[in-house]
Amino acid sequence: MLEYRAPTDDLNFLLFDVFRVQEAWQDIPAFADFSDDLIRAVVEEGGKLAGGVLAPVNQAGDQHGARFEDGAVTMPPGFKEAFAELAGGGWLGLSGNPEYGGQGMPKLVGCLLEEMFWAANTSLYLSGTLTVGAALCIDAHGTDEQKSLYLPKLYSGEWTGAMALTESHAGSDLGIMRTKAEPQADGSYRITGNKIFITSGEQDLSDNIVHLVLAKLPDAPEGSRGISLFIVPKFLPDADGNPGERNGFAAGAIEHKMGIHGSPTCVMNYDGATGFLLGEENQGLAAMFTMMNYERLSVGLQGLGAGEIAYQMAAAYAQDRLQGRAPSGPVNADGPADPLIVHPDVRRMLLTIRALTEGGRAFAMFVGMQLDRGRYAGDAQAQAFSELLTPVAKAFFTDRGFECTVIAQQVFGGHGYVAEWGMEQLVRDARIGQIYEGTNGIQAMDLIGRKVLRDGGETLKALIAQMREIELTHHADAVTEAFDRLESVTDELVRRAGDEPDLAGAAATSYLDLVGYTIYGWLWARMADAAGEDGFGVAKRQLADFYMARLMPMTAMLAQTALADSRMTMASDAI
Amino acid sequence: MLEYRAPTDDLNFLLFDVFRVQEAWQDIPAFADFSDDLIRAVVEEGGKLAGGVLAPVNQAGDQHGARFEDGAVTMPPGFKEAFAELAGGGWLGLSGNPEYGGQGMPKLVGCLLEEMFWAANTSLYLSGTLTVGAALCIDAHGTDEQKSLYLPKLYSGEWTGAMALTESHAGSDLGIMRTKAEPQADGSYRITGNKIFITSGEQDLSDNIVHLVLAKLPDAPEGSRGISLFIVPKFLPDADGNPGERNGFAAGAIEHKMGIHGSPTCVMNYDGATGFLLGEENQGLAAMFTMMNYERLSVGLQGLGAGEIAYQMAAAYAQDRLQGRAPSGPVNADGPADPLIVHPDVRRMLLTIRALTEGGRAFAMFVGMQLDRGRYAGDAQAQAFSELLTPVAKAFFTDRGFECTVIAQQVFGGHGYVAEWGMEQLVRDARIGQIYEGTNGIQAMDLIGRKVLRDGGETLKALIAQMREIELTHHADAVTEAFDRLESVTDELVRRAGDEPDLAGAAATSYLDLVGYTIYGWLWARMADAAGEDGFGVAKRQLADFYMARLMPMTAMLAQTALADSRMTMASDAI
Repeated sequence: MLEYRAPTDDLNFLLFDVFRVQEAWQDIPAFADFSDDLIRAVVEEGGKLAGGVLAPVNQAGDQHGARFEDGAVTMPPGFKEAFAELAGGGWLGLSGNPEYGGQGMPKLVGCLLEEMFWAANTSLYLSGTLTVGAALCIDAHGTDEQKSLYLPKLYSGEWTGAMALTESHAGSDLGIMRTKAEPQADGSYRITGNKIFITSGEQDLSDNIVHLVLAKLPDAPEGSRGISLFIVPKFLPDADGNPGERNGFAAGAIEHKMGIHGSPTCVMNYDGATGFLLGEENQGLAAMFTMMNYERLSVGLQGLGAGEIAYQMAAAYAQDRLQGRAPSGPVNADGPADPLIVHPDVRRMLLTIRALTEGGRAFAMFVGMQLDRGRYAGDAQAQAFSELLTPVAKAFFTDRGFECTVIAQQVFGGHGYVAEWGMEQLVRDARIGQIYEGTNGIQAMDLIGRKVLRDGGETLKALIAQMREIELTHHADAVTEAFDRLESVTDELVRRAGDEPDLAGAAATSYLDLVGYTIYGWLWARMADAAGEDGFGVAKRQLADFYMARLMPMTAMLAQTALADSRMTMASDAI
Repeated sequence: MLEYRAPTDDLNFLLFDVFRVQEAWQDIPAFADFSDDLIRAVVEEGGKLAGGVLAPVNQAGDQHGARFEDGAVTMPPGFKEAFAELAGGGWLGLSGNPEYGGQGMPKLVGCLLEEMFWAANTSLYLSGTLTVGAALCIDAHGTDEQKSLYLPKLYSGEWTGAMALTESHAGSDLGIMRTKAEPQADGSYRITGNKIFITSGEQDLSDNIVHLVLAKLPDAPEGSRGISLFIVPKFLPDADGNPGERNGFAAGAIEHKMGIHGSPTCVMNYDGATGFLLGEENQGLAAMFTMMNYERLSVGLQGLGAGEIAYQMAAAYAQDRLQGRAPSGPVNADGPADPLIVHPDVRRMLLTIRALTEGGRAFAMFVGMQLDRGRYAGDAQAQAFSELLTPVAKAFFTDRGFECTVIAQQVFGGHGYVAEWGMEQLVRDARIGQIYEGTNGIQAMDLIGRKVLRDGGETLKALIAQMREIELTHHADAVTEAFDRLESVTDELVRRAGDEPDLAGAAATSYLDLVGYTIYGWLWARMADAAGEDGFGVAKRQLADFYMARLMPMTAMLAQTALADSRMTMASDAI
């Protein structure tokens, strides 16, 4: 049985001891009302919802799955009720625009809540995160009228969101899409085309589904500069803003897939559907990226959440399951065997998950803080840092999160491979995080190409410089060494990239991992410094030691592979 | 659609150019009849069976699954017919004892065939490998009568094998099992108990199923020294050796699991079933290990096979799928986009799979050769090498094999996550290899504890010394450095293990991986040296370069983590 308990102690430690949010928010008037007590209460309530409402229907979602019949999708048992509590509690509007019914909470707080919702029920929360993302996109690019019409309904979850980008021949390469948008006399557009992989494109959770659809105008430029974005609601809002006439599109099928069975992945057929331009003509991809960037961080949090629930399950099992004897002598001499937890290799597995998950949680909050400063304090550098770190968060969290679910499954042995305990579901559900919202390879190329090489590594170096300003007591030398190494790898890549056109791509994945492990190291040192003398604090410092001894060594290896001659990767005969 | 093509060129290259089997077999009279042409023909035929018969029913096996009703198991559509061809072709008796109808072929050749059968259809071949393993165990420990009765039927696949070890509370720790065996007046035993995770314990492929069951005699010593092994056939053979009376056991259920849906994983209830002692009383675990060691290498080959089919699928997709443009300029300027294969990160993924799979194939043949020399040339050192390397083969092949299926799935993007292409099935099927036949953590502890620390690293050093004797032209320095490092890590572990009781366990997984990557490096250097000047040879050397640049750096990292202070892993507060 999959169970989930909010990691409240760790969240509060990060909020109040590591990142000291009140200090960090001193120059952000928008956050003046958010006291420590309020934040603590919000996190507490969100944790209860996750553990008490979302998690209990998670396995049923996998076993029943979303069902498709005659164009309609029926969500798994209990999903509708659980979603109603998620939406009714205002959680989808948490970071939303207060002018339209949102609560204007810091992204940093939103990160914590999203991680818990993902952990508790990935399939169900997908409908939530797409709603939040659609609202964000409309808030950023919509007219006042569009905002008034859509935002309150999305924040309340009465209506939900879907993003329609992919076509069967156009995935990572959206420039070659074919869906067409023809302008109509009334200012609307007729949208015609077929999209695939549309999460929550059809479901029975909400009164209306607001699709954000990418399509091409008749005389649009070729490629990605000729794509526009449209609001295409399932039911066209009537004069009172209520769902009216059914729009001209429908789901044609849902996919059979490895996991997230409780989330309908739809084939959508738009057959002259009515759409409304969102933002400027031919600027759709950029507008969609507002949503994509939000989703990318959010999908990263899916990875963290997966790691957390996997850890909780595996740690509990390792305490209970009796198997073998401790190398240093029995600890349960009266029983038939000792608990698994005495075995060093089992502990290695559990500590690896914790080191990666708690390191990632700190990273997520750090990125959340940069987003908040960029948006609410007008801090352009923080904004640049958030853009630099978003692809790292998406790819590194989901890669490590998948790894963590596999490790946790391994702790269960054969019992991890059968469905009963739910561990294999966690693995299957976590796997999608590495693929959707831009594959992790795409994230790595975004990082190295757009975010690092394009400015000669300046933003990255500014970030490292800022990180170096915080004096560290624990692990200072290891962190300094890793920063030096990351800088020198970056310099060499910048120097060589001009002459080696394939270098960026060949180095991309190693480089992203290098950035990830390096910054986790810095965050673990900060956590070790911030930890107190109680049991929680002692354990944190022990975990920091473990990270430095067992995971930080990845950085030297990745530095080497990132700098490998790209000709080895491009050698023409070897594939 | 999953398709599989035998990697015949690579197999022949390894057989005749790298390992030069005729030279290696000069002092093995038992192999005198196996000419190059014969071996070539056997490999060719085995490849046809794999690609043409086993692979075509693989996806149906996943989709339909084995079905359980009223104690009976129905195998998926097409499995019975495909198994009949596998068995009818004599493939299950390939390495069997010629006195009883086996073909006495070298294990090294058997490795190649098994890899292909696994690749083509893991679920189906599970019934095959357990039959081969059961025959091996009876051949090693049975009486003449038992051999005459069972071996011909198992070699022909008329009867199949199953191994019954695990109980719900006793998995890795078999010493605490409860199944009882009571001696009867006629020399047989009454077997009573419940076993779980019994692969092919019940199915409709064969006329009889020969269970090898571990159980405890009434006054047996506690723990693993009190376990005996029994032959417990589903139908008791009559006086003519034909299936007679139904024995007193049945399947109670089959498991719902992550993958290998076409393979029934049975709960078996032995209710006073008639069993026949195999080997000596209370020596069952050692006897079962004859089978286990065979199965461990075989399960390792499952990992290699998974990597190979995953590579073939992903490489073909990357050649076909048009998405994006090459960093160095379009290669398909007239088309809407270039094929995926132009992208360095996609090539990195494909080359990683190849480097690991082809390196692993060479490793498997090397282990097969040691097994052959131990068994047929009375070479005690080769026997010791095979025992040292078996846990590495099992764990390293399956860990890397799983990684390879995940990487290949990633090449497909979203299309890899949906069921249609079969890539997600490969991932789910490969995952079990890391768990069964002793989890990979158990393998790592077997390696470091029983095979390395117990003799102070002598066997490992003798192996390295033998490897160093072969003069290398390519990558000699990198290999020497890796050997030096492995020796020095081994020395330090030997030195510290006495004072650090948890060191072996804490270091185990890193150490096993260190051994694996190091020996793959040596094998890649040997392959580079053996490769000719044709396209195949050039590609091999390019892959060797890739291995050295992108995977060999793992060895330095693993050396560091293997030597980490075990107190960090054992710290009591951190879990």
